[in-house]
Amino acid sequence: MQAVRGDELVATMDPVRHELRDLQRFASELLVAAGLNDAKAATTARLLVVADAMGHSTHGLAQLADYLDEIEAGEMEIHGGPTVVADHGAAVVWDGRRLPGVWLAAEAVALASERAASLGLCAVTIRRSHHIGCLAALLTHATDRGLMVMVACSDPSAAMVAPFGGREGVFTPDPIAIGVPTDSDPILIDMSSSITTAGMSGRLRRQGLRYPGDWAVDAEGRPSDDPGVLVADPPGALLPAGGLDHGQKGYGLALMVEALTQGLSGYGRADGEGGWGASVFVQVFDPALFGGRDAFAGQTGFIAALCRSAAPIDPAQPVRLPGEAALRGLRDAEVCGVALYPGVLEGLAEAAARYGVAAPQVVG
Amino acid sequence: MQAVRGDELVATMDPVRHELRDLQRFASELLVAAGLNDAKAATTARLLVVADAMGHSTHGLAQLADYLDEIEAGEMEIHGGPTVVADHGAAVVWDGRRLPGVWLAAEAVALASERAASLGLCAVTIRRSHHIGCLAALLTHATDRGLMVMVACSDPSAAMVAPFGGREGVFTPDPIAIGVPTDSDPILIDMSSSITTAGMSGRLRRQGLRYPGDWAVDAEGRPSDDPGVLVADPPGALLPAGGLDHGQKGYGLALMVEALTQGLSGYGRADGEGGWGASVFVQVFDPALFGGRDAFAGQTGFIAALCRSAAPIDPAQPVRLPGEAALRGLRDAEVCGVALYPGVLEGLAEAAARYGVAAPQVVG
Repeated sequence: MQAVRGDELVATMDPVRHELRDLQRFASELLVAAGLNDAKAATTARLLVVADAMGHSTHGLAQLADYLDEIEAGEMEIHGGPTVVADHGAAVVWDGRRLPGVWLAAEAVALASERAASLGLCAVTIRRSHHIGCLAALLTHATDRGLMVMVACSDPSAAMVAPFGGREGVFTPDPIAIGVPTDSDPILIDMSSSITTAGMSGRLRRQGLRYPGDWAVDAEGRPSDDPGVLVADPPGALLPAGGLDHGQKGYGLALMVEALTQGLSGYGRADGEGGWGASVFVQVFDPALFGGRDAFAGQTGFIAALCRSAAPIDPAQPVRLPGEAALRGLRDAEVCGVALYPGVLEGLAEAAARYGVAAPQVVG
Repeated sequence: MQAVRGDELVATMDPVRHELRDLQRFASELLVAAGLNDAKAATTARLLVVADAMGHSTHGLAQLADYLDEIEAGEMEIHGGPTVVADHGAAVVWDGRRLPGVWLAAEAVALASERAASLGLCAVTIRRSHHIGCLAALLTHATDRGLMVMVACSDPSAAMVAPFGGREGVFTPDPIAIGVPTDSDPILIDMSSSITTAGMSGRLRRQGLRYPGDWAVDAEGRPSDDPGVLVADPPGALLPAGGLDHGQKGYGLALMVEALTQGLSGYGRADGEGGWGASVFVQVFDPALFGGRDAFAGQTGFIAALCRSAAPIDPAQPVRLPGEAALRGLRDAEVCGVALYPGVLEGLAEAAARYGVAAPQVVG
């Protein structure tokens, strides 16, 4: 096995490209064929392909075959909308009834954005959502409107990230994403509380690759760069951000995300419900009702410029801002199409044949 | 120089102990003598000593001599209260007018707690606060009332933490603290976005000690465990959490904190104002208006129990929750008094003599 750098993972994309809207058409038709209505299918398809265009290839169309399986198995609800558990204006709780999480989360961002414009901020939490896909893909709805947004989620049914000092999984990677408007491009942060994710670990494992550092521990608590420890018997665990050296950081983030998602929604691990899903926290701030939109963008644009112009450790690698590569990927996708991770379309071929959905065209 | 572990730093406390309330009386009298009114002095003194009792000794009475200097130099405003820049119920901005930050931040937590009880959540941001001290000390006002609280701050006048990939300071340590009520003790998270803080770096440097890992880079971008790089000419920089391996985590956190504190308050680095200070973000959630207080505490208590019972890497070191040691320190302080970091009282002796304030008694 060999170690792999993050930028090498990106470089292994399939050289074949597909038109952005054709991929969305393909994904949407598959979801409609499986039973979703047009709106749910279109939003889910759109955001999965946006995730691929942003380079978040573990959370793009790579998820779709599993979503179709979940719908077919009755594990993903297709009918109706979320039940409102609580609504106090700026504080909202939905029961997602295991509806498609990408769609639910997008609806939550839209509602929070709308309400933040009159209240200054609005938080929507969702219990019993299904998987919400790529968090970064959800941010631009808000940042395009000049709003700051936070999205976090956890899956109460899974546990593969250890607390700091532990060798046993307690958390999911518990990601948090933050969209920050500036005076030019928004900053789009999307990070797990653990050093790496379950999806990336599975991909490396299948390719026989190792983490670039000791990002996990085995069941005996020994530091490990082998993604196979997660599926060993007994399993090891992923380490929180900061790792063995200062993992109290990722541990703190994970506890914050669990409290925001499962605590505020009032539903989570304590209920012992199985099945792939998510508890979700969405919050939007409208800077107009705080210190003003221009003042906000002036400050965030200023710090962004400071970061970009900071002297780099490696002169060949200027300091980048979170989201820079994702936004470039999105723009490129409009012109050059989207490159998918190898095997993604092959994984959907059987469903496409069964549902009679035409495969996406290859571009140029 | 030798490396030092975090728990060894705690172990170097002065063996002499003082009564909690006597230390608060001493600090309060000094602040009143310098010109603060009773309320501002009492709150500032109370929370500084609470920080010491919690073990956050770089942000306890160790700050007081500098606060007195700032008051005497006219750099810390002593009269009046914050100006309200915006107030939309759940979204509030204050101009702190460089008033004592510990008091301002405590007032913000109190206001946000009160409003969250009717609105579900409330965010108060403060521009031009003075230094707010120890974030963890501010959390229990909210958690004692069953509320979840977040406090973050940045100092627009300083920069010693590099962005990921950089070798030049752009951020302050940009801490974020989160208080989470559970079915027993609250979880009290207080972490900087950087691996370590400026205060800890200064202390290690003065003692001729090194970081336990490469927590900094020198001006040429070489990894370093020498806290002296921060004061070298040209200076190096502290690394964001995750370090050279995965510092995009701390970098993302720092950008989030800068946006919450300086973006939402509409005042910060872009204004180029000098002088020690802080931009502050405080937010409180009342779980009663989300999924319910019992449901919240049930979930957070459950994950806390999972963490505590997770198999530890080192059998002699059970997994702890953030805040466990701080809460034990607070309880012990009521019975056994407070141990200060060596030199703290000596640093206040000159001011005490000048103002005629009696030194705190030594306990038993």
